[in-house]
Amino acid sequence: MIRITFLGTAAARPTVARNVSALTLQREGDLWLLDCGEGTQRQMMRYGTGFALRGILITHLHGDHVLGLTGLLRTLALQARTEPLPVYGPPGSTAVLEAMIHLGGRLSAFPVPVTEVEPGGRIRCDAEGYDIEAFQVRHGVSAVGYVLREHDRPGRFDVDRARELGIPEGPLFGRLHRGESIEVNGRTIHPDEIVGPARPGRSVAFSGDTRPSPSTVAAAQGAELLVHDATFCAEEADRARQTFHATAAEAARIAVQAGARRLVLTHVSARYSANATPLEREASVVFPGATVAHDGMVVEIGYPEDPPEGDPGPADARPEAGSEALDTSHHASPDS
Amino acid sequence: MIRITFLGTAAARPTVARNVSALTLQREGDLWLLDCGEGTQRQMMRYGTGFALRGILITHLHGDHVLGLTGLLRTLALQARTEPLPVYGPPGSTAVLEAMIHLGGRLSAFPVPVTEVEPGGRIRCDAEGYDIEAFQVRHGVSAVGYVLREHDRPGRFDVDRARELGIPEGPLFGRLHRGESIEVNGRTIHPDEIVGPARPGRSVAFSGDTRPSPSTVAAAQGAELLVHDATFCAEEADRARQTFHATAAEAARIAVQAGARRLVLTHVSARYSANATPLEREASVVFPGATVAHDGMVVEIGYPEDPPEGDPGPADARPEAGSEALDTSHHASPDS
Repeated sequence: MIRITFLGTAAARPTVARNVSALTLQREGDLWLLDCGEGTQRQMMRYGTGFALRGILITHLHGDHVLGLTGLLRTLALQARTEPLPVYGPPGSTAVLEAMIHLGGRLSAFPVPVTEVEPGGRIRCDAEGYDIEAFQVRHGVSAVGYVLREHDRPGRFDVDRARELGIPEGPLFGRLHRGESIEVNGRTIHPDEIVGPARPGRSVAFSGDTRPSPSTVAAAQGAELLVHDATFCAEEADRARQTFHATAAEAARIAVQAGARRLVLTHVSARYSANATPLEREASVVFPGATVAHDGMVVEIGYPEDPPEGDPGPADARPEAGSEALDTSHHASPDS
Repeated sequence: MIRITFLGTAAARPTVARNVSALTLQREGDLWLLDCGEGTQRQMMRYGTGFALRGILITHLHGDHVLGLTGLLRTLALQARTEPLPVYGPPGSTAVLEAMIHLGGRLSAFPVPVTEVEPGGRIRCDAEGYDIEAFQVRHGVSAVGYVLREHDRPGRFDVDRARELGIPEGPLFGRLHRGESIEVNGRTIHPDEIVGPARPGRSVAFSGDTRPSPSTVAAAQGAELLVHDATFCAEEADRARQTFHATAAEAARIAVQAGARRLVLTHVSARYSANATPLEREASVVFPGATVAHDGMVVEIGYPEDPPEGDPGPADARPEAGSEALDTSHHASPDS
């Protein structure tokens, strides 16, 4: 399961309806915070994301993306956190991030290592089967977007076929699924007899604040979800250019070029705070189904082969149906 | 009119129900912000205080009292403020306050002079007829409380008597009211023939975070309102001592000793966030009518001789009734 919870969807300054930028990105047991505008800790309480963060990803150092960092860390210290909490930022961000982390007195309850991530650089989470990669964006200051990319998953495991071949259930299933050949009753069985082709991992991309950029297209290529800056409507295209933001239609064109499956717009200018329909309408002309995020909005990303939400679907509606296929990377591994 | 709007009433960290410390103190046209915890700017929007601040008063540098400063100032800059906005803090606070003001890049849209106020020091607002005085509190760090003290007001002006004496309405009324003698039809009229005795100005006192302290008793002497730290109930008296806070009953005893007319408790521990009745109950045993603040609560302070709220009252229910007394300092001046 990948779940995005939008904590703040306003541009530059909060409104009564929208707080400034932050969202949580949860994948299985890992919880990431992406940006941390002022008031983010309270939004986390309000929307129930929990505080068990694995790390914090900062796109750039504008106040509306980082000013909540100090307070959040102080609250985690009051909660008796002792585990390190890594903070990642764009090139050149270390000094300011460290100033914010230790503002008003050195934070000593737990380590908060700061790491700058160059565009193309990766935060490796190999044990969990994904990376988070930074990509260059265009915001007039040092700024990156982030894309979470799952590693490819092993192909589906054909339990029926394995039984036919007389493979006993247990560790041998796991070895085959991991790509090893095994020997059963004197016969060598190769993984491709039982296991389908590897299935590509999912990816979700976050542009942060940016002008439309080919690097975003590249990073979001085939993404299940692209979350993109859409501060303005087309009538303010000049202002979007001057302030290094995107219009809703520009964001939508990026999503189309990337072939993203879903587009959510965020970083909404105060003038659309209460009614974001104009943004949604402009984007939907280019990318049907584009939606504008609101504070508290949750987006869950299933596997592409999962039935659509609310429709458990007959077994034969799924790809590779008719076999008792085990999706061992999604559920428990057969040898666990 | 003096109006206090509580913007954040939580201790240390926010909860869903309560944000961290801040309140606005409005007297006639002057709006002051007292403390500025993270998220204060959004609370100001939510509760409609406006942003036309005359100054910001900081009691001490704990994060829950100051971390909203940077974001608030950035938003004022986006609002195109150019007027200086003075920030006052306790002794030794300049460096940290300036770090917060200019965090992430020098704030240049408007000047933000920082002034340390020694206990006993005053911010003089002579033209508006009041001062704000800092007083020493006991919080384990450099910390002050603040008391707004109106200057004494001129006595009531007896319009009937003035007419009897043949004084024409107009500038002469004002001169008498300001304490000058005048001449009418060859007769010298002294102010005390028309104007009652000077009436003491009102005062409202804010303890900030503190243990019970005689300096608070002195500062809040006869105050219309005391707003006091009441982080804990009596069962956590030890914790209150260790963390340099007050219990509800301790706060109530301070109010009794000061002879304050009204007591509002704030800085509520998370455990009482959703239900502050235990705090209110403990305080009310000592100081009947004590109330616990909540976010968005507004307290308006009338003049002592004003009829109680919701009761316009017959004229003879007021002190000095029976005369057409003009309260020229409260309403328009007769010569304006």
